[in-house]
Amino acid sequence: MTSKEWENRVAYLGPTGTFTYLATQELFPNEWLIPYKTIPECIEAVASNQVDLAVVPVENALEGSVPLTIDYLYHEADLYVVGEVLSPIAQHLMVNPKFADHWEGIEGIYSHPHALAQCHKYLYYRFRGIQLNPTTSTAAAAQYIAENPDQCIAAIGNSSAAETYGLKIVQDNIHDFHFNHTRFFVLSRTNQRIERDHRDEQIKTTVMITLPNDRSGALHQVLSVFAWRQINLSKIESRPLKTGLGDYFFIVDVLEDENAPMMRGAMDELSALGCSVKSLGTYYTYQNSHD
Amino acid sequence: MTSKEWENRVAYLGPTGTFTYLATQELFPNEWLIPYKTIPECIEAVASNQVDLAVVPVENALEGSVPLTIDYLYHEADLYVVGEVLSPIAQHLMVNPKFADHWEGIEGIYSHPHALAQCHKYLYYRFRGIQLNPTTSTAAAAQYIAENPDQCIAAIGNSSAAETYGLKIVQDNIHDFHFNHTRFFVLSRTNQRIERDHRDEQIKTTVMITLPNDRSGALHQVLSVFAWRQINLSKIESRPLKTGLGDYFFIVDVLEDENAPMMRGAMDELSALGCSVKSLGTYYTYQNSHD
Repeated sequence: MTSKEWENRVAYLGPTGTFTYLATQELFPNEWLIPYKTIPECIEAVASNQVDLAVVPVENALEGSVPLTIDYLYHEADLYVVGEVLSPIAQHLMVNPKFADHWEGIEGIYSHPHALAQCHKYLYYRFRGIQLNPTTSTAAAAQYIAENPDQCIAAIGNSSAAETYGLKIVQDNIHDFHFNHTRFFVLSRTNQRIERDHRDEQIKTTVMITLPNDRSGALHQVLSVFAWRQINLSKIESRPLKTGLGDYFFIVDVLEDENAPMMRGAMDELSALGCSVKSLGTYYTYQNSHD
Repeated sequence: MTSKEWENRVAYLGPTGTFTYLATQELFPNEWLIPYKTIPECIEAVASNQVDLAVVPVENALEGSVPLTIDYLYHEADLYVVGEVLSPIAQHLMVNPKFADHWEGIEGIYSHPHALAQCHKYLYYRFRGIQLNPTTSTAAAAQYIAENPDQCIAAIGNSSAAETYGLKIVQDNIHDFHFNHTRFFVLSRTNQRIERDHRDEQIKTTVMITLPNDRSGALHQVLSVFAWRQINLSKIESRPLKTGLGDYFFIVDVLEDENAPMMRGAMDELSALGCSVKSLGTYYTYQNSHD
């Protein structure tokens, strides 16, 4: 099949076998998926029209927000969020098949720093003293293990990484917290939400708000604008404006359509209060079942 | 001088030559400074009475909060903040002295990922294509360069790292943003603020607040408690509770003494609203001049 037969080109944080790959594959089973090495490269790929959409992680239930994604969307890119994917995160310990019976003697463990952190207790009780080696992704760790078949070493990652790189899972679900999820944004140049049958009912709008100059109580005023209208927020977070310690912008997730009358009123009032306000668009949530 | 002659043992995020070392040294010129490898180890050292105080980074003007510090203080430790230090961050490129005249041909650059990010534009325009290697600290990068004198490689770090490891600074102030600061917490088991002559006038209290179960508008109510009393907040930030996506606690910096009558009233009302509230203590700010 040539590239022209695909409807969309979708960038994702690669390589094949990452958690972002799993999220992307389930939402876009029939599109052309293209791996990029870093979050900024994914975002730039869609901003510069190399691809139509990009899928990047934005928040994890344990680690919190992915600052690189939020900061890049605020400071560098002019894109819309057209969908979000929630994926359960399950981490497994995997080795080259020839060490499948000797995995308890592994001499080093490789994974993304977040994955190592997510398995902290397991690693502490089971492999204390064994060297932990950070890699750029869980899939890169699996690839490294596959490329060094003579070393008795292990990777931590998902089942797709094991499959992609021909490794054997010797301990599954070794993550410490069993409700762990990651949230991914689907980004586009056009403000046109993705509408598939398996979407959640609840709609969400993400707004970036910069307060007027350090006026005392300004954030309280901003929240009042939403509160008296009974518009619910599912998240509010501050990030540095990069102009000095103590200067922040806020990223707010609002459970309302940006085109609803109450929401338009709220946005107008925020501007009238002296805030700089930017909506990243209204979108649906898709629950991912893979791990 | 033996250890018994020191008044306090102070843990800091080491090794010698880190930015935390500089901050610690200026506030505690006459104490026994003990380097620890990680933020949790620093915090555990004071919690378990191995040391009297610990100095750890909590926020950077560009990167935002240090999640490990905030999460560890919320979930794992029961300590007080007894002071904060603000330090300017200046990054320099340094090599082994024998390469001082050939530094433009360096084949690899080593530093902490945050330092590499802080010099992103410089590195992009000056050393595009050269391999960037992450290390656990800027000082560890300098140490690596010193230990590999035959390789034409460079570290990025502060002037103390260059001095400690015998390196030559060949390009100074290569960081992209020139107002960059890092904020450090001084932690103690006892709620007794550090009072030195060169403190700032403004007092600050850090409070951790968990909202009642997902009640709509709860954060707005929390801010109202401070707003009607004209108590100013210098920062509010959400962090995951680690119980699932969408569950957060808030860390709030309040410009008031925790023992002031208005502040006691505010804390009592927050509890009455169903919030779980924990004050980390009231403390002074110390401006650090070193880079």
